[in-house]
Formats: sequence, structure tokens, C-alpha cells
Amino acid sequence: MTDLFRHRMRHAVAQAADAGLTGLLVTPGPDLTYFTGYQPTAITERLTVLILATGVEPQLIVPVLERPDAAEADGAAAVSISGWADGADPYAVAARLLDPEGVYAVSDNAWALQLLGLQQALPGSRYTSMTAALPMLRAVKDADEVERLASAGAAADAVFEEIVGVRFAGRTEHEIGTELAALLRAHGHSQVDFTLVASGPNGANPHHAMSERVIADGDMVVLDFGGLKDGYGSDTTRTVHVGEPTAEERRVHDVVREAQQAAFEAVRPGVACEEIDRVARDVITRAGYGEHFIHRTGHGIGLTTHEPPYLVAGERRPLVPGMCFSIEPGVYLPGRFGVRIEDIVTVTADGGRRLNDSGRDLRIVA
Amino acid sequence: MTDLFRHRMRHAVAQAADAGLTGLLVTPGPDLTYFTGYQPTAITERLTVLILATGVEPQLIVPVLERPDAAEADGAAAVSISGWADGADPYAVAARLLDPEGVYAVSDNAWALQLLGLQQALPGSRYTSMTAALPMLRAVKDADEVERLASAGAAADAVFEEIVGVRFAGRTEHEIGTELAALLRAHGHSQVDFTLVASGPNGANPHHAMSERVIADGDMVVLDFGGLKDGYGSDTTRTVHVGEPTAEERRVHDVVREAQQAAFEAVRPGVACEEIDRVARDVITRAGYGEHFIHRTGHGIGLTTHEPPYLVAGERRPLVPGMCFSIEPGVYLPGRFGVRIEDIVTVTADGGRRLNDSGRDLRIVA
Repeated sequence: MTDLFRHRMRHAVAQAADAGLTGLLVTPGPDLTYFTGYQPTAITERLTVLILATGVEPQLIVPVLERPDAAEADGAAAVSISGWADGADPYAVAARLLDPEGVYAVSDNAWALQLLGLQQALPGSRYTSMTAALPMLRAVKDADEVERLASAGAAADAVFEEIVGVRFAGRTEHEIGTELAALLRAHGHSQVDFTLVASGPNGANPHHAMSERVIADGDMVVLDFGGLKDGYGSDTTRTVHVGEPTAEERRVHDVVREAQQAAFEAVRPGVACEEIDRVARDVITRAGYGEHFIHRTGHGIGLTTHEPPYLVAGERRPLVPGMCFSIEPGVYLPGRFGVRIEDIVTVTADGGRRLNDSGRDLRIVA
Repeated sequence: MTDLFRHRMRHAVAQAADAGLTGLLVTPGPDLTYFTGYQPTAITERLTVLILATGVEPQLIVPVLERPDAAEADGAAAVSISGWADGADPYAVAARLLDPEGVYAVSDNAWALQLLGLQQALPGSRYTSMTAALPMLRAVKDADEVERLASAGAAADAVFEEIVGVRFAGRTEHEIGTELAALLRAHGHSQVDFTLVASGPNGANPHHAMSERVIADGDMVVLDFGGLKDGYGSDTTRTVHVGEPTAEERRVHDVVREAQQAAFEAVRPGVACEEIDRVARDVITRAGYGEHFIHRTGHGIGLTTHEPPYLVAGERRPLVPGMCFSIEPGVYLPGRFGVRIEDIVTVTADGGRRLNDSGRDLRIVA
């Protein structure tokens, strides 16, 4: 493992240099996990930061009371760890290891508190977000990462096959969501990040989580669930129907399925990220529902469930083999119902490969 | 509820003006919950920000697909909500509502990505962290908040009384931690934030979480657990012993208990936060263990389990009735064992009131 972490850090430093940066400041969350395997028990106001720069050994600064945990991380041997004690100024400690005139990429989710502390400690330094400076830093997965994502996706498929067998009518969204969470855990997820159960008119809100609404015969139900298995994310959406759907419900589902399929078939190395969004959107627009597809087509996934690449208008960077992302078009009819279909897809030399792959036909549930 | 949220926002704007600030930028997390009751399903890279400033209506900017959720928040009626769509530049949207030369306090846990986006959109604006500018913004709790913290503390007491009845010897730290988590939920917690079970030498690491170490007769075991009940936090530590302790183990436990009691008795309005730390530290230092008390004495608690006020050297601000914080001295003997005792305490006109209050004598477990 140490070699893998060293390789990732060296590669990142080289990328940073190419981008004109002095180095990277990596804080707890997916970036720090990627470089060191270290995941503090909690992300708090206390500064933990990995400093990566050309020609110097990677330095991990941690609160002294968390130093024993940091020293046990998988990548600990690849970094030099130093602690700061409560009462000390952690920004002064970090500043001594930074170039006062340097330009650093900082983890997107670093706390503003901490960025402001560094800006104040080193007024001549400058900062940019990791996504702005090195957007594809973690976007291209290695073979092991792809297989972990595939394993998480297969677990999500198994969860879907079980949930369509349960009774929906007469039960609350919350009850179904609780079952989804239990099934994700039963299928090896260590963490459940979301279980969205959006029935009937709630389905028209793409981020509706769960409510006490009782699901009824005749409802469309959007099921969107995922979490982490072996450190990597799953994120799957299927829309099911309680009893027989109307012709319009079938038509909307067909349109979304067709959009999802067209976008999937457009995946190949070299195609711009925004092109995948355009392909999905065109299908939905041609069918007359363009104004009701109110979000981007997808987001990258890996150590976290939202990361580059984003499949959105304006993202002109090309797809590269090893990238993994969701393709999840949807149509949302206010006050009535919604439909979304989502798979995780990875880019191969030949095209796309679905990492979850439950059937996309409209399933009827009881 | 709308009135409560309006009151909190007005009070914060007045405090900000007194501190020379243009306003506050509040992002998802405890600050946004405090002002609006709105808790997005997930905190992501998509910008959600509440803009509070003198003389203007509070403005909540959200991703358009999360707008229906935001509109259902308890405090939605107290703010004006506007949405931005994927593909738009959310920083440009926010910038139009900000003073280009303004000075804003921003939530500590706002993403660096977002702060950098605002700094770039408005190069003439300046920012400071909420904790630096308005450290006591949420530190003084109202009566309802104190009672919710007391209810969470009472639940933690009940959990402790149950856990000391289970068998420790021959079971892993992880098993005991899993029971603690289940007990917290059984006693009304909606969220378990941490269950630290640090036995024998693991106890010398104050942030040791849980391991597969099998607890043995003769072990000291530090139990530190908490989470959220009805939106407010619990955080309690007791150290128990499996079988009969040695004279030294008893002595260290006595010292920590005495330090915790002395610090508790020092609590009264007007005393500096750092004085509580000094009182606890003096007891431990006089007993010869000063170098082994390697963290601050406490942290505030409320909508989150780590917030101002911090009981740490250098924090000279005074205690005020309604403040709520942990008092948690400890002694950590590397390679051997650790002891920590922690209660949540609130400041009343007359002194301190413990919000959790299990007995602090060394409990012997099986």
C-alpha cells in the first residue's frame, strides 16, 4: 500500500507543477483518504493537513491527540507526521512548511475556517480549489478502484432485486427507505449515504428524501440509494410503479430510459463530458419534456458519491478510460410524478461499461 | 418557529454590525440549522448559502433541484429563497446579492471551494470565519435548547447505566461500541456520532475509536459516546475497570475525578473560559501527571458536538449563563492506560449545572 500512496502523491505533485502550482494542501475527506488512507474519527475545527510539494517529503500535520491514529493509517509510512497541541496556532505550524509566496490547490471540502487561517498566516500565498486546479486528480480510477465500484454496484443491483419484492402500497416512504438501508448493509455496505423514496407527487422533487406519505396503488416511486462498500460508492436509481401505470407514465418512463441508454452509448474516450449531458437532454427535449429535466446528467463517483467529472453543459474536458460516473437523466412533472434512471458507468477503451445493471424496464410492484 | 428564526437572524445581523461586519454567509450545517431549520439531505459541492445583512431580507440561495426541500424547512417563511440551476455560476448569483466591498463572516465549515468561488467573484470583498468574528453566536443557549441538551445528557446517563451491566472481558472493543450505539438509539438518539471504546493501552490514545482488541480482566476501559437527540448533542465519558484495579489505576482515576470536580465548581458567570482549563490542569499537574493531560479541558456543544466556547489556554472570553460545554480532563499513560471523565455542563446564574450526571466513582465491570 505504501507504494501506491507514494505513487499517487508523486503523480499529484507532478500534475500540480504542470499546472503552475507550488503544491497541494489536502484535508480530511476523500482527498486525504486517496493519498494516505487516513480517515480521522471526525472532521472537526482542529487542523489536519497533508502538504505535498515538489522536492520535499510529504508532511502530515495533525492535532497531537490524533497522532496515534494517523500513525496507524495505511499510508503512514509514506508521510512525515507532526503534531500540534491544543492552544498552539496550527496555521503558524503549517505556515512554516509552506512557501510564503506559494500557490496551492486546497481540498474542496477544507473548512473555510482553515483556509482563512492559512490566508491570514501567509498573506503572500494564494489558493485555488482542487476541483478548479486539478479537476481530474481522482477522476481516473485504477483497476482496483473500478472493481471496488463494480462490487458496490453489484450490491446495489442485489438490493433492488430484493426491494421490488416487498409490498409498497399502504406503507410509508420512510418504511421503504429503512428497508433499503438495511438491505445495503446486508449486501456489504459499511455506510449508507442516502435512501430516497419519492412516491407520487414527491417524485417531482429530484432530491426528495423520504416522508411519512403512505404509498398508494397507482403511484410512481423513485428509488435512489447508495453508500460506501469497501470504501467506494454506489449510487443507483430505478423508478417503479405500484400496480398498472397509465399510458403517460409509461411514455415518460420510456423517454427517460431512452435518454439514459443514448447517453450510455455515447460514452467513449475523447468525448467531452458535456456531450453525454447533451445526448441525454436531446432525447428528453425531443419528446417534449426538456423543461422538466432540471439537473445535470451525472457526476463522478469513487471515494465519495459526488466528485469530478461532472456531466454538465460547459464541461468540455474529455472522457478518459477509468473515469467512473453516474448517468441519471430524469423528468419531473410538478404536482404529479417523477422518473429517474441512474447507473454508474466506467469508460473503457471501447466505450462504456455499466457498474450497476439492474433491468431498466418499468417494474411493477405491489 | 418563524419568529424564533427571525429573532436569531436579526440578533446575528446586529452582532455582526457591532463587530464591523457587512453581514453573515451561512452554509449548510449547524449555522444554517440554527437560523432556518434547513438541513439539506447532503452537504455537497453545490452552493447553498444564506445571506444575512443589515437592512435586507434574508436570502437563501439553493441549487434549484433542492428548492422544494428548502421551502419545507421550519424557517422557510423567514427567508426569501432563490434557486440556481446546474450549469449556472452560483458565485455570480450570490455576488449580485453581496456588497462588492463588504466584509462577511462565513460559516466555519463552508467548503474552501465555495469561499474561493466568492473571493474570485468579488475580489474586493473580505471574509472572516464565524468563530473568529462572532465566536459566541450560538454559544449561549435559550431555555429550550438547554432542556434538549439535558434530555440528550439524561439519555447518555441511561446508556451508561446499561452498559456497565454487560460483560466486557473476552469481548472486543468493537462489540461494546456496537452495543453503545444501539443503546443510544434505544434511548432516543436519532444519530450516533461516536462510540469510543479504548481498553488497556488503547486508552492512552484520547481519540482511539474502537478496535478488534479483546478486552481482558485487569483493563481500564475509556467509554466516550454521544450523538444527537432531538437535534442536540450528547457527549459523555466514563472510565470503567474490568475486575479489581491496581492502586495506581485508582490513584490516576481519583486525580482525574478531582480535576473534573474542581473545574465544575469553578464554573460561574464572568469566569474566563481558560480559567476552567487551568483549574483542571492544576489538579493534574500537582499530582504529577501534567505532561499526560494532552488536550484542552472542553468544548461547547449544541447543534454540533464541537463548537465555541472552547475551554483552552488563551480563551479569555467570559462564561455567560446559558453556555453549554464539556468538562473532560484526562490522563494518558503511553503503552499502559488512560482515564477521562466528561460531563456536559451549563452555566447558570449561580454556577454550573451538569446535563449528564452518572456517578463519577470508578465502576468495576465484569
